[in-house]
Amino acid sequence: MSAMRYTYLGPEGTFTEAALRTLPEAATRELVPMVSVPAALDAVRNGDAAAALVPIENSVEGGVTATLDELAAGSPLMIYREVLLPIAFALLARPGTKLSDVKTVTGHPVAQPQVRKWLRANLPDALWESAASNADGARLVQEGKYDAAFAGEFAASTYGLEPLVTDIHDAENAETRFVLVGRPARPAAPTGADRTSVVIWLGDDRPGALLELLQEFAVRGVNLMLIQSRPTGAGIGNYCFAVDAEGHISERRVGEALMGLKRICPKVRFLGSYPRAGVAVEDVPGPRPGTSDREFTEASDWLTRCQDGRA
Amino acid sequence: MSAMRYTYLGPEGTFTEAALRTLPEAATRELVPMVSVPAALDAVRNGDAAAALVPIENSVEGGVTATLDELAAGSPLMIYREVLLPIAFALLARPGTKLSDVKTVTGHPVAQPQVRKWLRANLPDALWESAASNADGARLVQEGKYDAAFAGEFAASTYGLEPLVTDIHDAENAETRFVLVGRPARPAAPTGADRTSVVIWLGDDRPGALLELLQEFAVRGVNLMLIQSRPTGAGIGNYCFAVDAEGHISERRVGEALMGLKRICPKVRFLGSYPRAGVAVEDVPGPRPGTSDREFTEASDWLTRCQDGRA
Amino acid sequence: MSAMRYTYLGPEGTFTEAALRTLPEAATRELVPMVSVPAALDAVRNGDAAAALVPIENSVEGGVTATLDELAAGSPLMIYREVLLPIAFALLARPGTKLSDVKTVTGHPVAQPQVRKWLRANLPDALWESAASNADGARLVQEGKYDAAFAGEFAASTYGLEPLVTDIHDAENAETRFVLVGRPARPAAPTGADRTSVVIWLGDDRPGALLELLQEFAVRGVNLMLIQSRPTGAGIGNYCFAVDAEGHISERRVGEALMGLKRICPKVRFLGSYPRAGVAVEDVPGPRPGTSDREFTEASDWLTRCQDGRA
Amino acid sequence: MSAMRYTYLGPEGTFTEAALRTLPEAATRELVPMVSVPAALDAVRNGDAAAALVPIENSVEGGVTATLDELAAGSPLMIYREVLLPIAFALLARPGTKLSDVKTVTGHPVAQPQVRKWLRANLPDALWESAASNADGARLVQEGKYDAAFAGEFAASTYGLEPLVTDIHDAENAETRFVLVGRPARPAAPTGADRTSVVIWLGDDRPGALLELLQEFAVRGVNLMLIQSRPTGAGIGNYCFAVDAEGHISERRVGEALMGLKRICPKVRFLGSYPRAGVAVEDVPGPRPGTSDREFTEASDWLTRCQDGRA
Repeated sequence: MSAMRYTYLGPEGTFTEAALRTLPEAATRELVPMVSVPAALDAVRNGDAAAALVPIENSVEGGVTATLDELAAGSPLMIYREVLLPIAFALLARPGTKLSDVKTVTGHPVAQPQVRKWLRANLPDALWESAASNADGARLVQEGKYDAAFAGEFAASTYGLEPLVTDIHDAENAETRFVLVGRPARPAAPTGADRTSVVIWLGDDRPGALLELLQEFAVRGVNLMLIQSRPTGAGIGNYCFAVDAEGHISERRVGEALMGLKRICPKVRFLGSYPRAGVAVEDVPGPRPGTSDREFTEASDWLTRCQDGRA
Repeated sequence: MSAMRYTYLGPEGTFTEAALRTLPEAATRELVPMVSVPAALDAVRNGDAAAALVPIENSVEGGVTATLDELAAGSPLMIYREVLLPIAFALLARPGTKLSDVKTVTGHPVAQPQVRKWLRANLPDALWESAASNADGARLVQEGKYDAAFAGEFAASTYGLEPLVTDIHDAENAETRFVLVGRPARPAAPTGADRTSVVIWLGDDRPGALLELLQEFAVRGVNLMLIQSRPTGAGIGNYCFAVDAEGHISERRVGEALMGLKRICPKVRFLGSYPRAGVAVEDVPGPRPGTSDREFTEASDWLTRCQDGRA
Repeated sequence: MSAMRYTYLGPEGTFTEAALRTLPEAATRELVPMVSVPAALDAVRNGDAAAALVPIENSVEGGVTATLDELAAGSPLMIYREVLLPIAFALLARPGTKLSDVKTVTGHPVAQPQVRKWLRANLPDALWESAASNADGARLVQEGKYDAAFAGEFAASTYGLEPLVTDIHDAENAETRFVLVGRPARPAAPTGADRTSVVIWLGDDRPGALLELLQEFAVRGVNLMLIQSRPTGAGIGNYCFAVDAEGHISERRVGEALMGLKRICPKVRFLGSYPRAGVAVEDVPGPRPGTSDREFTEASDWLTRCQDGRA
Repeated sequence: MSAMRYTYLGPEGTFTEAALRTLPEAATRELVPMVSVPAALDAVRNGDAAAALVPIENSVEGGVTATLDELAAGSPLMIYREVLLPIAFALLARPGTKLSDVKTVTGHPVAQPQVRKWLRANLPDALWESAASNADGARLVQEGKYDAAFAGEFAASTYGLEPLVTDIHDAENAETRFVLVGRPARPAAPTGADRTSVVIWLGDDRPGALLELLQEFAVRGVNLMLIQSRPTGAGIGNYCFAVDAEGHISERRVGEALMGLKRICPKVRFLGSYPRAGVAVEDVPGPRPGTSDREFTEASDWLTRCQDGRA
């Protein structure tokens, strides 16, 4: 039944699957790998799946453009959860292979810049060829096409391989952020550590439009966590912006900023308010003075009194 | 009966009285001159009068500090009307006096800079001495103490004088703005050409506080017509600001800007929303795109749909 | 000889004279009281005096408009020094007068709001009449016209009076700032605790012009100490702004902000950079990170390297 | 000789080669295809080539991250030219093939979203498989592995193919911007239609840092043409920004903005000022009032006069 089905960016054995399995509910869902982000999301759009888990931001590669563009276009979808996964590769090989035996390596093209230094230091003579995904690379090693593949350690058993080396990552703190996407519905209640995602189109690409956009947030004390430009397709220099803000749409400062954007921008798409992963509520600084819900309410009461002649 | 009594900055024969008499309702009120702005306003505060007309801004002298300070302090009052009066002086003398007879002239100290050039050109040898008010100067001429007084032409008959010269004003476009002040009540409905007056205290006089104040207006597309600093009494360099904005408190962009100020400033005093004098509704540019009431309502509806999962 | 002559806002015995006498050089100058601020400044303009001391800002009354307007118009003058004087009044009477004998009091109109509470508490039945200056009030007491005058304690001996009560001031921290004004010349070297004064005309009174003005300062980290609107004489709603900024024109952040103003405003008048009174250099916070002269120089060197292909 | 050698993102027959061949000087250079953007740029860095042509921005896919990241890191390089190339694909097949024969198609993954609609409408049953580049796809068609390849029409002859269909592009105005990159040297003289590229690191990712960055440009009237965030590698949420501004580093408003960034940001990398492609000088709006070089010079002269007491 589709309500029990979650799609994800496959194939099996990818980091996306590993991220999905960190969600408690994953244990009771049918998890279906899809060949691409659009395919994973389209399954949600057309009702074949209740939700899809896809990567959206990577500390090494930046925003995942396929995901950003899919969320910005087509029929609306909404983000309900995020998952942060540290990205550490294992070098997987067929049982019995020694590191010194490895002459050819493979992996997803995105993996290459994340293991380049390690390769130079440990396998300077190994030849790299790209695979369609890390999991696909593992499969090709299983089939004997390459000696070893960079993939998540969790992929080893799926493909009958063994990790030669684990915890490989050139960059400190390498991690990927994944989002669980469903059809639009009422967002979950605020937790105190939330993130709100929107896509914003600027008008006539006039100078200063981006500055005005940022001021709508700044004047209400709403901090931004991500701002990623994406082409609108209308020619070089025409961009929309994927923006993540701290806070929840039900908080007054966030809601007022979103309404401000809605008024001055030709198009705003709300992508959801959802709990931040990896951040404890007590570590989130409170709203800037003057921007708490209580202060919004007090100011609103005061305005009413002014309008009634009772201020 | 106090409900039928209007006070004004006297004495009789001042420009303030002339301004008051331009209001249709003045014909049916008891008009009482007071010795000072504080006295005129205190009569309203303590219920002896329904309203007071006082000068608030002069194109030559700037903000009338006595009025600004009185409105900022003490028990709250509200502005309901404004009157613009061109300021042109007449030189008043006893019947029979010729211009060449005039050796001494008088008038309110504020009048002097407004007739200085005229005096230099027409009566270079005349001696000026200040009077407590223009009307008082006329009285002193009546009593024979001076040869002529600068005052409003309308003051001539009150003091048995005749205008030797009329329409004297060094500056083009010299005019004074007066306000009709009453006890707080619901403001009149918006006319489409309104002005909203507030007094705003900045917090800890930190740098940038004034900039933030202006941005609360700017981000909602609310234009300012007046910004006048006044000392708070807490020492050199401590100021509050009397600010006049275009629009009416019942308009969404104005209301939201006022609430923004209320949240970030330690104190805001609403002084009223009232029709602008001398401006036809059709000459007022409409609100900046994105800031009309309709756009506020649409954005609010959109936000609700987002929160309900129906965007 | 005019080079040895300083004028000041008289008459003798005013606070302005007291402020002037705090300057060490005053001991060797001829100090000439003038009847008005314009008269004091005109003596400098026409070469009759080397400098003039005039009040410019009062913690109770705000900017001294006569001074601000005189500095903004006419042939250019420059401020070289400032003096801060605590304003405390003495009640002066003829020898032998007791407080209980005082039925009539006088003083400058500006003094009245500063002693009103004291009067109400200590001489509730005394009648106030205004004098042309505090010193003039003292003279009228000497002549027997009034029982007592509010003036600076230093005025007592000049008029053969005795202080009945001293240190009278309704407001805490009441003080007046005076400036020593001369003909334009090279400003004194920066001390580390300086103030720069300018008058700025906004263009076509378009909305947002004041905001842009403030941003020219803000973006270079220059704090403002005073911003006072003054009418330009071109009709209600047309203002220029007297602005005091922290720092010295020879500091790069101040110079660049002034040039920015010069470019975007139709008119800017530089009124001087001079040492701040009452502030120790060690109590002045250093420039905001990124705005010190060293950082300006480094950025300029970097730009040159970029232009030379050596960055 | 390396001074005569230009590298480009290969292989032969790519759009990059076509772009490179639009440069007049290409006729007299040795043009060397490289397997990747890093390889093309490293050849410049280590002196094997004088310059490299690489894609940097695509109206469908956005910023080319490999290029942006390479320019931001490693030893400095500089951009000297840009080339705009309309992106229109031809469907290339072996001579004799008819459109109805085409069952399998290939091309670079980036090409797929740009021909997807065309495929759906014209070859709804054809199977797509990705190739390493468009040119590589053409080679695979030559070898008989696929029936047809999407590539530039100019690639046909290189691989002995014929265009079945030309001018295929789902999006209107699809184009790619390429840049010619060399080792740092003095930028070419301004032409009146120039672009300046920088990479900017924000400090402590504090809220508002991006807003401050944009204000450094805005306050000097410098318009932005591109702003693209790229991860710094220091973890999710840490970004630097690739920014393109209108104008030339030798123009005062641009230079001052760059210096402002240099002062407030921990790191700024200048990537060059170079002529804009596809824009006639006469179609470039002049600088905003107050930001022309002449106005900068006048303001600077005025500041000097102020400092000398001659203003």
